[in-house]
Amino acid sequence: MKKYRVTFLPDEKTIEVDEGALLIEAAEKAGVFLNSLCGGEGVCGKCRVQIVKGHVKVNGNSVPFFTKEEIEKSYVLACQTPVKEDLEVLIPPESRLEEEQILGESRENKQKTWRESPPIHYSEPDWVSLHKRPSDPASLFEPLTNKIYLELPRPTIDDNIPDTGRIVRELRKKLKYASYEVTLPCLRDLFIKVRRSDWKITATLSRCNGMGQILQVEEGDTTDRHYGVAVDVGTTTVVAQLVDLRTGKVIGVEGNHNLQARYGEDVLSRIAFVCGKGSLDVLQKAIIENINKLIETLAETKGIRIEDITSMAVAGNTTMSHILLGLMPCSIRDDPYVPTVDLYPPVPAKETGIHINSQGVVQVLPSIASYIGGDTVAGVLACNMADRPETTCLIDIGTNGEIVIGNNEWMLSCSASAGPAFEGGDTKWGMRATRGAIEKVEIIDGKVRYETIGKVKPRGICGSGLIDLIYELARNRILEIDARFSSSLKDKRIVQGENGLEYIVAFPEETETGETLTIAQTDIDNIMRSKAAIFAAIKSLSDYAGLTFDKLEKIYVAGGFGNYLNIEKAVGIGLLPDIPRERIEFVGNSSLMGARMALLSFHAFEKAVGISQSITNIELSKFALFADEYMASLYLPHIDRERLFPSVKF
Amino acid sequence: MKKYRVTFLPDEKTIEVDEGALLIEAAEKAGVFLNSLCGGEGVCGKCRVQIVKGHVKVNGNSVPFFTKEEIEKSYVLACQTPVKEDLEVLIPPESRLEEEQILGESRENKQKTWRESPPIHYSEPDWVSLHKRPSDPASLFEPLTNKIYLELPRPTIDDNIPDTGRIVRELRKKLKYASYEVTLPCLRDLFIKVRRSDWKITATLSRCNGMGQILQVEEGDTTDRHYGVAVDVGTTTVVAQLVDLRTGKVIGVEGNHNLQARYGEDVLSRIAFVCGKGSLDVLQKAIIENINKLIETLAETKGIRIEDITSMAVAGNTTMSHILLGLMPCSIRDDPYVPTVDLYPPVPAKETGIHINSQGVVQVLPSIASYIGGDTVAGVLACNMADRPETTCLIDIGTNGEIVIGNNEWMLSCSASAGPAFEGGDTKWGMRATRGAIEKVEIIDGKVRYETIGKVKPRGICGSGLIDLIYELARNRILEIDARFSSSLKDKRIVQGENGLEYIVAFPEETETGETLTIAQTDIDNIMRSKAAIFAAIKSLSDYAGLTFDKLEKIYVAGGFGNYLNIEKAVGIGLLPDIPRERIEFVGNSSLMGARMALLSFHAFEKAVGISQSITNIELSKFALFADEYMASLYLPHIDRERLFPSVKF
Repeated sequence: MKKYRVTFLPDEKTIEVDEGALLIEAAEKAGVFLNSLCGGEGVCGKCRVQIVKGHVKVNGNSVPFFTKEEIEKSYVLACQTPVKEDLEVLIPPESRLEEEQILGESRENKQKTWRESPPIHYSEPDWVSLHKRPSDPASLFEPLTNKIYLELPRPTIDDNIPDTGRIVRELRKKLKYASYEVTLPCLRDLFIKVRRSDWKITATLSRCNGMGQILQVEEGDTTDRHYGVAVDVGTTTVVAQLVDLRTGKVIGVEGNHNLQARYGEDVLSRIAFVCGKGSLDVLQKAIIENINKLIETLAETKGIRIEDITSMAVAGNTTMSHILLGLMPCSIRDDPYVPTVDLYPPVPAKETGIHINSQGVVQVLPSIASYIGGDTVAGVLACNMADRPETTCLIDIGTNGEIVIGNNEWMLSCSASAGPAFEGGDTKWGMRATRGAIEKVEIIDGKVRYETIGKVKPRGICGSGLIDLIYELARNRILEIDARFSSSLKDKRIVQGENGLEYIVAFPEETETGETLTIAQTDIDNIMRSKAAIFAAIKSLSDYAGLTFDKLEKIYVAGGFGNYLNIEKAVGIGLLPDIPRERIEFVGNSSLMGARMALLSFHAFEKAVGISQSITNIELSKFALFADEYMASLYLPHIDRERLFPSVKF
Repeated sequence: MKKYRVTFLPDEKTIEVDEGALLIEAAEKAGVFLNSLCGGEGVCGKCRVQIVKGHVKVNGNSVPFFTKEEIEKSYVLACQTPVKEDLEVLIPPESRLEEEQILGESRENKQKTWRESPPIHYSEPDWVSLHKRPSDPASLFEPLTNKIYLELPRPTIDDNIPDTGRIVRELRKKLKYASYEVTLPCLRDLFIKVRRSDWKITATLSRCNGMGQILQVEEGDTTDRHYGVAVDVGTTTVVAQLVDLRTGKVIGVEGNHNLQARYGEDVLSRIAFVCGKGSLDVLQKAIIENINKLIETLAETKGIRIEDITSMAVAGNTTMSHILLGLMPCSIRDDPYVPTVDLYPPVPAKETGIHINSQGVVQVLPSIASYIGGDTVAGVLACNMADRPETTCLIDIGTNGEIVIGNNEWMLSCSASAGPAFEGGDTKWGMRATRGAIEKVEIIDGKVRYETIGKVKPRGICGSGLIDLIYELARNRILEIDARFSSSLKDKRIVQGENGLEYIVAFPEETETGETLTIAQTDIDNIMRSKAAIFAAIKSLSDYAGLTFDKLEKIYVAGGFGNYLNIEKAVGIGLLPDIPRERIEFVGNSSLMGARMALLSFHAFEKAVGISQSITNIELSKFALFADEYMASLYLPHIDRERLFPSVKF
């Protein structure tokens, strides 16, 4: 087989691949990780690259992802482009992994978790025979709903067992449930369906406590129309992946803003709405509307029928999970912070208002405590923390920061109220990580260089931009160690604002609105409180576990505070512990990945249940030293810099 | 302790009992079995007796059961009357066991099954601590729904697990389920209920495949308000027992006529209605209305709340069970006679339209085949046939006759279309066993003596009356061995009717309508076809099993063909096999008793599932010799009288 050389720019990494290999495979082989949400299906349009030398054949399906100019400049999708000759390929910034969308899972994480970590143990991997894709968790799976095609022998007077017995007899040859039950709605039209199809049917099953529950019988072979949805219900953003349950492949992803936002920015204000003069019903309807819109869009754009979606796995924080199911969240807010439930029962879709097949199942991932929810459990599942002997740490940064530390023998969690600073709240120019947000900042010789999402004029600063900015201000001694503007420094960008000093990030002529984009001392104080809360939580939990940071083999950083995270700078401001940087990994939306794992594998879901029951949650409010840790963390990077942040040099 | 002598008339059986013993206990001890539906609770009013010598203290609660004249004549309820001195007690005919109502279970059967037969094995008898009543199955039970009172520790910051976890933690101390799940409707108001009750709650659980499913949480201790309903859904009659699930006692019983009757007399004509121009919905609504009316009446008369009824066990033939759950019965009717389902799933009450607690569970007993239903399974359960090494036989006589023969190693069943003759159909003067029906007949020296239900002027003849009549006609040589009127005999009661000879049972002046009550040759032919079909089925099944009748240790006769059955005469006409009469037992409504057992004990229900799966059903239509057996049975008692009915002397 012929071999060709591909060089990736700007890194100038060159690799030799077989003829016909896809560009995305070549990039992986070269150690260049490309953005991809859809798993290489050509549907997300994220792995855009530019062919700067050589020729490729363009897949017509990828044309809609590009402008006319881009096509002229030889832009292609790496996952749809086979190598037929030597090439030079430029990876534009938006296609690089570190600029990945908030919506998706980190591709890097997918790689690391599934290639380098011990794989999740699937006890009965061969229950269902499938097209196996090596190294993909979906190749060994039992989705929350399972479709089995059956050709039943026609009844005769010598074999006239009931229709259900006939179906179960055949199912037993293919599946291994101890017992089977047919639900009443399925029974109601079974008579006609088995006969009209001449006894060739497809059964959809879910698992109920070891029993196979037959939810639906369809005429003929419908196993190629079998879909599920994985959903991450964030306080701010809701993301859904449409998954082909026959292959395990993601075939579409959509996100929208949580419609509950109009009733309160964060979890506490939403609880206040529900338990005050508002109503639970209003918030429940809002989130159901979010999810239904995503499903409708996915079904429409992918050309599938809603009725062919028979299961949904949902990960969300405890409050979101409660509201989604119509459960009062009031006790979550009040000392001693007790939610109604941690192990959510599987719920018939029709009881939730979610528009999938009416006999379909909605499974919410289990939560741990009032402020450690199914999103964290999903993250622990996705990062495979509970199976490994080495101690690792998951830090999920959002309005609430959740920390989990542990290994296959013990796991501890805690949550800290970080405030919305890293999500764009609590600062004058803060914004969510959307178009126009400054997400990268550098200050060199008094000059500010920044990059915005979408490469447009700045409209504000998102979480990752704020981290960069604080770091750069500190590195340039514009901020003192106590995070106050240096009084000695003369800088034209430091001006007196309404409430004290401000630093000008962008002048009016640079911004979209024509206003001056600044960061004020009060903004910085809020960010410092957020970062101090998170770091103090990490430190407290480590101390509680009797660990120093160097014992953490890995820190996974997840969260919706930005698409991009400069780990060096996050450590530099004292947000993340100072351990070797290669041991810190930004994993993106681990909640969504965990939800998808649970959707694709009942065994993964059961593992999530095990995780939720084995994690011991520590209430920081009763952890005496937390307050001290918090105070000590209100510095850049920390008051005990020598001991805790030896590698930070500014 | 003082002892007194009690003599029961008209049998003149005398017994000595301790002071304070109840009359009903004294009667049992004397071998005189009294009617009783309620298990001695003083609520059914069936055990009426007359004190003819001596004095007793009357329980005021029993006054409403008697007329003023009866009270003056010292009528009392035997179950409410303690013995305080020597007594002579007359048992009126209506209180004797052999005249028991169609609605109830046979008291005798209850005695025999539970006192003389090996008891049903309950694997975990002590799951729930109860007031134990010796020898009563209800003392060892786990009802389909279980109520447990819990006093939960209030949450603190050191113990702030979710509400569900708090409940399950306490439940685990009292119950032994492997896992627990709280249903979504129960979760929805859990938050407020646990707090408003100061953490003192009562949980209602059902069992789902070994898992405890918490259906409902109530504030405070409600374990004294815990009821279930056992229902026998017959093609003709529907009977419901209200059962206190705390004690296992029956506290009320009600029956009504199946409202589906207006759409067809028997199962086949109802299927024809559903699958022809009628609709399933109409018949389903009819039977639901039957059941809801019974429940409403029971709740009202017993002063309980419908919401406190949380489970229902239903036994019915396969067609009735299908229609009740809204399942098409069409394939039951057509070769090869395949029902949709045999193992009915437990169904939330709200999905059926049945008015009990909306979170309650309706469990239909499993069926075996198209014409061997849950009523037969219930009968096998009630007669405890599946646990015993000796071979026994159950004959359930109705429009369809069902036969089961077997022991703890094997069981066979078959059904024969008997026609409605024994239920009052197919004969000119035939009627159901209600007021005015002749139920006993004797013919001596050309004189006809009969008794009617309610001791009123006759309106017709019910099944048991017809058996007596045919027997008496044969014994008096009015009918020949081929069941034709003797041509040689001169009898003023034999007259020429429209369609041949008729025999006058009652002259116009004797009857309610003033018409002559006759039995015609055509009527007799129909009865003979019914009895031949049933006997041929018994004989065919015995032959199939390789058994002669003397190997049957017991024959249980069940069914709705009358309140009373003269076993001697039933054998005499060749309906029942000629084995020693003490081995033939009339068990009344064994379907209802089996349903109640399943209601009271999940273990009994599981046994019913085992019975349904272990019985092999034989289709008589493919049993070559059945037709011959049928032809040979169209005689009185049988063409092979010497070999098969040696003890019949007339």
